[in-house]
Amino acid sequence: MATIVQKFGGTSVGDVSRIKRAAQRIKQERDAGNRVVTVLSAMGKSTDALVELAHDISESPDKREMDMLLSTGEQVTISLMVMALKEMGISAVSLTGWQAGIKTEPVHQNARITGIDTERVESYLNEDKVVIVAGFQGMSEDGEITTLGRGGSDTTAVAIAAALNAESCTIFTDVTGVYTCDPRVAKQARQLQSISYDEMLELANLGAGVLHPRAVEFAKNYQLPLIVRSSMVDAEGTIVEEEASMEQNLVVRGLAFEGAVTKITIERLPNEYDSMSNVFSALAGSGIDVDIIIQQLTGENELNVSFSIHTQKLEEALEILNTRQELLGFKQIRHEEGLAKVSIVGSGMVSNPGVAANMFSCLAEEEITIKMVSTSEIKVSAVVPEVDMVKGVEALHKAFDLDAVKEAEKVTS
Amino acid sequence: MATIVQKFGGTSVGDVSRIKRAAQRIKQERDAGNRVVTVLSAMGKSTDALVELAHDISESPDKREMDMLLSTGEQVTISLMVMALKEMGISAVSLTGWQAGIKTEPVHQNARITGIDTERVESYLNEDKVVIVAGFQGMSEDGEITTLGRGGSDTTAVAIAAALNAESCTIFTDVTGVYTCDPRVAKQARQLQSISYDEMLELANLGAGVLHPRAVEFAKNYQLPLIVRSSMVDAEGTIVEEEASMEQNLVVRGLAFEGAVTKITIERLPNEYDSMSNVFSALAGSGIDVDIIIQQLTGENELNVSFSIHTQKLEEALEILNTRQELLGFKQIRHEEGLAKVSIVGSGMVSNPGVAANMFSCLAEEEITIKMVSTSEIKVSAVVPEVDMVKGVEALHKAFDLDAVKEAEKVTS
Repeated sequence: MATIVQKFGGTSVGDVSRIKRAAQRIKQERDAGNRVVTVLSAMGKSTDALVELAHDISESPDKREMDMLLSTGEQVTISLMVMALKEMGISAVSLTGWQAGIKTEPVHQNARITGIDTERVESYLNEDKVVIVAGFQGMSEDGEITTLGRGGSDTTAVAIAAALNAESCTIFTDVTGVYTCDPRVAKQARQLQSISYDEMLELANLGAGVLHPRAVEFAKNYQLPLIVRSSMVDAEGTIVEEEASMEQNLVVRGLAFEGAVTKITIERLPNEYDSMSNVFSALAGSGIDVDIIIQQLTGENELNVSFSIHTQKLEEALEILNTRQELLGFKQIRHEEGLAKVSIVGSGMVSNPGVAANMFSCLAEEEITIKMVSTSEIKVSAVVPEVDMVKGVEALHKAFDLDAVKEAEKVTS
Repeated sequence: MATIVQKFGGTSVGDVSRIKRAAQRIKQERDAGNRVVTVLSAMGKSTDALVELAHDISESPDKREMDMLLSTGEQVTISLMVMALKEMGISAVSLTGWQAGIKTEPVHQNARITGIDTERVESYLNEDKVVIVAGFQGMSEDGEITTLGRGGSDTTAVAIAAALNAESCTIFTDVTGVYTCDPRVAKQARQLQSISYDEMLELANLGAGVLHPRAVEFAKNYQLPLIVRSSMVDAEGTIVEEEASMEQNLVVRGLAFEGAVTKITIERLPNEYDSMSNVFSALAGSGIDVDIIIQQLTGENELNVSFSIHTQKLEEALEILNTRQELLGFKQIRHEEGLAKVSIVGSGMVSNPGVAANMFSCLAEEEITIKMVSTSEIKVSAVVPEVDMVKGVEALHKAFDLDAVKEAEKVTS
């Protein structure tokens, strides 16, 4: 008998009727003769409601107490799910994070899983019960309730699957799978049958948003096949695995893009051994995520440094840098808002020289100015004017043959 | 430094503003130099909302899963309370039932506390923190979340107070104290300054409803002074302790009453050694609470048995008895609806013969028919027509000098 781990996100268990629908999905796996562990998020908007309550009391609520508060959300869902399963005649039991043996760092709001003691889960599986586990939460060694931060339930599911040596981990969500690019923006987007961990990691990090990068990393480390599929529609999903078995001829498997990018340039920074470190430590210390960084010598002892950040952080970044102008010793700062980042991702790039050049040609044909570039083994990103973002994505989608990807078919079960 | 335990019920923490008001109360005790442990119930109607969710899924939800579901209610309140305290600059920490070391029987929905491991609570108290504990919940030895059933939070508070050797346990509620009788019904009702455990137990069991009998029993066993007072109004409460120190001249300290009583009479039951046992086991097996029981020999080998039950249970009781008529061997069943039970309670009765006689005379003067009577060391109950209940209560209140009890005064703090 194979052990299967599933995870349903908040919208998939958003109300009683959706919980019942998810219970049907669990029953399918069960009827297929599998041992089933299901990880659940909190119901739809219930976390938001709890956060609002907390903010009615405190502008910056204590992190430990936020974990205490928010971890109730999943506890509600898991108990309701077991009730729904029992109504269908299925033997099931719910476990909170601490009951399921999810051990984490002693950190609140953003703890990492340090280990899983699967004894209790396994003993219930051996009693032929479906085990329903609260996602997003765990317990530190000193008995504190912790939460895992964004994407936490995905991580719980993958970690449990790894610890149980499960055959696979299925993430049920509100989309039918992983797409060549965001279908809400580019109508040419095609659903992929498979994608590699590394490609998925690049796409997750680039904001494709279907899977949390921590979950993908975990799955990669344990070589656990990860399946993304819809909890609403009965359709084939996308499998994330070591080597994308299908469609291997694709050099580029996906496109990612994000708007609201701002480029900041620090001009005439002294070229000293700690200049770069001083600049980026100051920004990191205030929690400002810097994306692409370009450094350019402009004189014997002077640099220009450009980097991109989210436009939301612009004011804060400028303030941090300006208040340190004397210390850092630069001449002036310029910035350019209204930009976007467009990226192509594909393992096939490694063995295909000239992919970046093809990307630049494609953008040039569309008369799109490239402001910054960054590359990795399997990714090329270009910062372009935000007004040209969609046009660029559509042109790249076509240029790299993604328009021709065959869609996964709907399954009639 | 004295250790003080407090408990706030659901209405006292029903919304954010009430939570803040309760936080002020906690601050008062804290400012007075005490080590404070506060036990909280779930916010107002939040338990009802969770029960409704469960019933949308299942008509008879699994008990274990109900505990999993309902225990989230207090977890929400305790975290919000700590946030409110921290806003006021008070160092505090919340603990769920299992974190606070509340150990219970392995029973769901109605578990008894078997012990309390106070290590964690004490270590936080030693760090000079206010400790906020989730009431109503605990953990069984096998790591299951359990709940204590009705009045559970009172029991949690008293049990923790006993385990910590606290100076007292204050139950903050929506009334200002314990009254000579229900002030909603009898306008003559007076608030008592003090009452003994035994008197309180009789009144609690008789449905006065201010304190749960389990909590009173616990307090009695540990000789822990229990204070009932209002969370809304700053007024003196009522102290429940071994010997009611004030007003000791009162023979009767309180009146209790309840309507919707039905008297059932089983006529001509064979007088065999197991007849009574057969009748009442059958009723108990279906969860029907029988109150007063009267047995009367009517012939050499025949009995009449009368007993009172809540009118809600009448149909069920009749069905149980009628379907067993052959087995039990009785001739017929009669019943009388529209009755009420009126009780007088007071430790002073023990040394005052004739209290029952005084009660009967008082009711006779009002021309109230007595249908059944039951007595204990410190209580006399009479079943009377429900239409006469309030009239009877008011007459008894006067006859036993309760109209003259001096009211506790409001405190201006």
